Order: sequence, then C-alpha cells, then structure tokens
Amino acid sequence: MTNDQDRTERVQQAIDMKTKPPGSLGAIETLALQMAIAQKSDNPIADPARLLLFAGDHGLVEEGVSAWPSEVTAQMVLNFLSGGAAANVFARSNGIEISVIDAGVIAELPDHQDLYRANIRKGTRNALKENALTLEEVSAALVFGEELASDEVSVGTKVIALGEMGIGNTSSAALLAHAVEDISLDILTGPGAGLDVDGVNKKLEILKQTANRRPGKLEPMDALCAFGGLEIACMTGALIGAAQANAVVLVDGFIATSAALCALRMHPELTNNVIYAHKSKEPGHKAMLEALNAKPLLDLDLRLGEGSGALLAYPLLRSACAMLNEMATFESANVSGKEE
Amino acid sequence: MTNDQDRTERVQQAIDMKTKPPGSLGAIETLALQMAIAQKSDNPIADPARLLLFAGDHGLVEEGVSAWPSEVTAQMVLNFLSGGAAANVFARSNGIEISVIDAGVIAELPDHQDLYRANIRKGTRNALKENALTLEEVSAALVFGEELASDEVSVGTKVIALGEMGIGNTSSAALLAHAVEDISLDILTGPGAGLDVDGVNKKLEILKQTANRRPGKLEPMDALCAFGGLEIACMTGALIGAAQANAVVLVDGFIATSAALCALRMHPELTNNVIYAHKSKEPGHKAMLEALNAKPLLDLDLRLGEGSGALLAYPLLRSACAMLNEMATFESANVSGKEE
Repeated sequence: MTNDQDRTERVQQAIDMKTKPPGSLGAIETLALQMAIAQKSDNPIADPARLLLFAGDHGLVEEGVSAWPSEVTAQMVLNFLSGGAAANVFARSNGIEISVIDAGVIAELPDHQDLYRANIRKGTRNALKENALTLEEVSAALVFGEELASDEVSVGTKVIALGEMGIGNTSSAALLAHAVEDISLDILTGPGAGLDVDGVNKKLEILKQTANRRPGKLEPMDALCAFGGLEIACMTGALIGAAQANAVVLVDGFIATSAALCALRMHPELTNNVIYAHKSKEPGHKAMLEALNAKPLLDLDLRLGEGSGALLAYPLLRSACAMLNEMATFESANVSGKEE
Repeated sequence: MTNDQDRTERVQQAIDMKTKPPGSLGAIETLALQMAIAQKSDNPIADPARLLLFAGDHGLVEEGVSAWPSEVTAQMVLNFLSGGAAANVFARSNGIEISVIDAGVIAELPDHQDLYRANIRKGTRNALKENALTLEEVSAALVFGEELASDEVSVGTKVIALGEMGIGNTSSAALLAHAVEDISLDILTGPGAGLDVDGVNKKLEILKQTANRRPGKLEPMDALCAFGGLEIACMTGALIGAAQANAVVLVDGFIATSAALCALRMHPELTNNVIYAHKSKEPGHKAMLEALNAKPLLDLDLRLGEGSGALLAYPLLRSACAMLNEMATFESANVSGKEE
C-alpha cells in the first residue's frame, strides 16, 4: 500500500510537470495515474491489448426474456470468427486483437484458431426453475477465465478488455446485480437487445419470480450458481486473473459490469485495475456503476455488448499513457509557468 | 437537399442491416450517418485526418484576464514544432498529422516545415480600448483559413480537426459567444487555463466592460473585429473552407466552438459537416453547445485546448466509418432476425 502511495505521488508529480495547466486533461490524467497503479509501473503502457469475448447461452430464454432466439448466440460467434461483427471492425480500427471463447454455447461450433472452449456445459439451466449452474460449474468457469487471462498477460498483453455475447444475458446480469448489491429489479430490468414496453414488463415479472426462488442478498459465487451465466462467470474469472497479473482490465457494458461486481466483491483489492469503458443505454447500468463507484469513460448510448464499448474507449488508454510517457515538461520545453 | 434525404434513407437502411440490434450503437450510428452526409458519400472515410492548430496573441491580456503571460503562446508553438505537447502525443497516438499556424503570435517564430504563417498582424489590439481587429484583418484571416483548409482537403484529407493556442483566448471566445448568441457573460466567463475565483471575478468585470464598448447583438464578422482573435478568425475560415470542400470538421473545445458559432451563423448550410469532439470543463462551453444544438462525443473534463479533445475523439470517427463500411449484414452473416 505504501508502494502505491509513493507511486501515486511520483506519477501525479510527473503529470503536473507536463506542459499544460495542472489538471487540464481531466479524466485522461486520472486514467494515466490509475494505469500506473494497476501495472505497478511509472510508465504504464496500453499495447498490446486483447479483447476476450465470451459467449454463452441461457436456459431462462425459454421463458421469453429476450427479443432474439438463442440460435443467435452461435450465429454471432461465427460472425466474430469470420470478422464481420461490430467487435471485429472496432478491434481492427483501434489495433486490438480478439479471442473468442465458447463459455457455454448450446450449438456445436467448428474449430477455429481464434476460438477457445471452456467445455463446462452447453447453456445454463432455466434459472426460474432451478439453479442455473452448480458450484462445480461456476468454479470451473472462474478457473478457466483466470487461466486464460493470466496466460494472455504472461505473453505480454497489457490491457485485457472484457466483452460478451449471449442471448438472454441482460437477465442474468440484472439478477446478479440484484442479488449481490440489493439493487431493485425495477431499476435493473431493461429492453436488452430490443424488447418493447410489454416485453420489458413481462421480463421484469419473470426476473422477479426467478429472484424469489433465491431471495435475499447472495455471495457472488452463490449468485452465479443461482442465475448464471457461464460467460459471466468466465469474465469474472478473467478479470481476477488479469488484474492479479497486474494488467489493466477494460470492462464493457451492462453484462461485463455484472461480472466486475462479482469479481470485485470477492477481490476488492483489484479495484484499481478495472476501468469502465462506457455507460450503457441499458437503464440499469447506471445503478451498477454507482455501486462500484465507477466513472465510465464514454457515454454514447451504446447497448450492443460484444466488448464494443471497450474497443471504442481503448484509444483513450493509449493516449493517457502517451501523455505520461511522451509529453515534454515545462523545464524540458522552456515554457514559462503560471503567473502568481 | 433531396440528394441528402435520399442518402440519409439509404445509409440508415445500410446501418440497420448490420449484424446488431437496430440503434444499438447509439451515437456511433449517428456519427456514421452524419459523416456520409458531410462527405456526400455512402461510404465516408476518416483517414487521412489533420489537425490545424492555430496560435495567436491577445491585446486584452494586458488587462490581466489570464493566469499565464503572453510569452507562453510562442513557447507552446515551439513545443508543438518539437513534438512535445499534448497535441503532438495525442496526434501520434491516434494517427493524425498536425499543421501549426502562426495566426498572429507576438513573438518572432523560426521557420519550420510544419509552421504556416498568416502574416496579418502580431497579436490583436486591446479590445477593452478599441476594436481588436479591422475588417480587413478579419477578412484576411478568414480567407487565409479557408484556403489553408480547402488546399488540405484537395490533397485528400477527409477530416479537418480544429484546435488553438493563445493566452487570453477564452476571453475572446466568451465575448464572441456573448455578442453573436446573446449568452450572458456570467455564464460564459470561466477560469480558462487556471484562474482562481478572484481571477475569474476580475476577468468577468473586464469582459463586461469590454462588451459594453460594443453592446448588443453583433454579426459574426463585426464581433470578430470587436473582440478578436486572429486564431479564432482563421479557424472560422478553416471550418468554412473545409466544409465547403465536403470534409468533416472536428471541433475541439470552448475556443474552437466560438469559431464554429461564427462560421455557422454565416453559413448555416454547413451544420452537418461539423462534429463537436467534447464538452469542455470550461463552464460556458455547455451554453455554446446548446446554442448550436450540438451533442459532443466526449465529456472528460478537458480544458486544455490545442485540439486535444478533437484528437482524443477522432478514433470514434474512424470506428463509425468502419462500422458502416466493413460490418457484415444479417444476410451476409446468416444471422437470424429479432423474434416478433
């Protein structure tokens, strides 16, 4: 902790000596400092970066909580692997690599060099009727995510972005935030990928019934068992693995933030490693971010998932590091100081 | 106008066929559509991009409206030319070139391959005592900026970012917005590059006296004569020149937005070509943006200028174009539609 305090003072002083009025780069200065603390380095770096894109299916979809059929999860995984999804074009546009993870997709997926498989189970159970996952399944997902992320950091990756695809997963994310943080489902339940008002009301009713099966505040592991999903449990593990290896973790939107809630309630000491990319248009995201005391970088009415918001925010991390590592100081550039 | 309407429908339809829930990329979709209209192309592109960074000094600084001495303007120009300023590191980080323009710096500046000179005058007159610029000087600055920008577009630049450096120029920007839009100076006057509360109160008093010399609503040209500055007049011209040549113009913060106010009151037909990079921490920026009905992309508490906010926002333009030009459609990717 003393090391962190020393570093904070040292890096803040370095930022204040750059040729700009102190504080004038606002959130970029905060970001540079946070990355220095996370990476335990006075010269944090943002490259290379990789998006871990976890896909999984949800048994609760059979109750009608989504506007889209479960088949779309696998279809979108194939789209990721062939490079045509928003995640792919944003990753190319911003210089980031993608790994796609079958965390628990129902359909069979073909082998592909960019596809990793958790091999835990195909989809979760219907959380309205029974626990979505067993404790063994959740544990396996956490370990899988942790190892995947820490392996990635061990080969040099500095920023791990977390994104997901899974028809029905705004339902799991809402139920998790409700169980772990005691946020009302009325606040947390939204249109997801496109429900109309009647659809949202029906979803809310189902989520309330589902939550009633496991009432009260739950520990993160227990909540993941109760409500799933496999992609969220894998992201939870990946956050822990990446952060423990001193990487910066860039969290996407509503669903990825539910994984961050679970991970940071288990490991609050990793808080400084986590950067929140954006505030989603999914209305419950605001309450989740507030519970985490998080200030997201972007607010662009995004509600896609796939890590898309993380990929769009990523260049800000690169610029923050460049500010700290490359800008001239008042002294080196012979610039006069402020008049007193 | 009909061409624009046809293009809007066509491009919106193309966006809606991409593999994502309609509207789920929020402001990125709006941005792609706006760039298509601006560039008169169904496939807008963001590369190459160039920041035009205009520097100028202000006679009003002798009244004590800034926390920094006028010498800093020239010192920062040298910093831009040697590559050590925030603008330089953000430009390198995000793949943009910079041209630095001496729009009216008091100090002598050495020749440099990246430095352009307006050769109009060295600094503005003290606007508290007399008009800052003559009509001939403002006209010369507009023409210079227009030609610089249109030349740049003619060699292939697709996005022109506008930024500035000039000790004292938040005062000119506030006076311009007050005169052109009738926004109160109480709202428009802020700390600029770092005044304390007493300093802001003193600045407000001086700006009110200065505005009283030329009371009432003024036309943009007249306001530029009354209050300067040369860098703002050059930016006004550059916006017009770039937009008339069908480039996208990316406007930085408080001062660049005052140039946009002047340019768009003269040429409202260019509105669609202008993108606002961010909402500045300078408190008056919000009112200016509202007067322009502008929705800025970022909100990061920036208050540096130099085009820094434009450079940070620029990757979003690249991603928006990539979304439109590179994403798969539901049909091409064999993804099922939403359930009805």
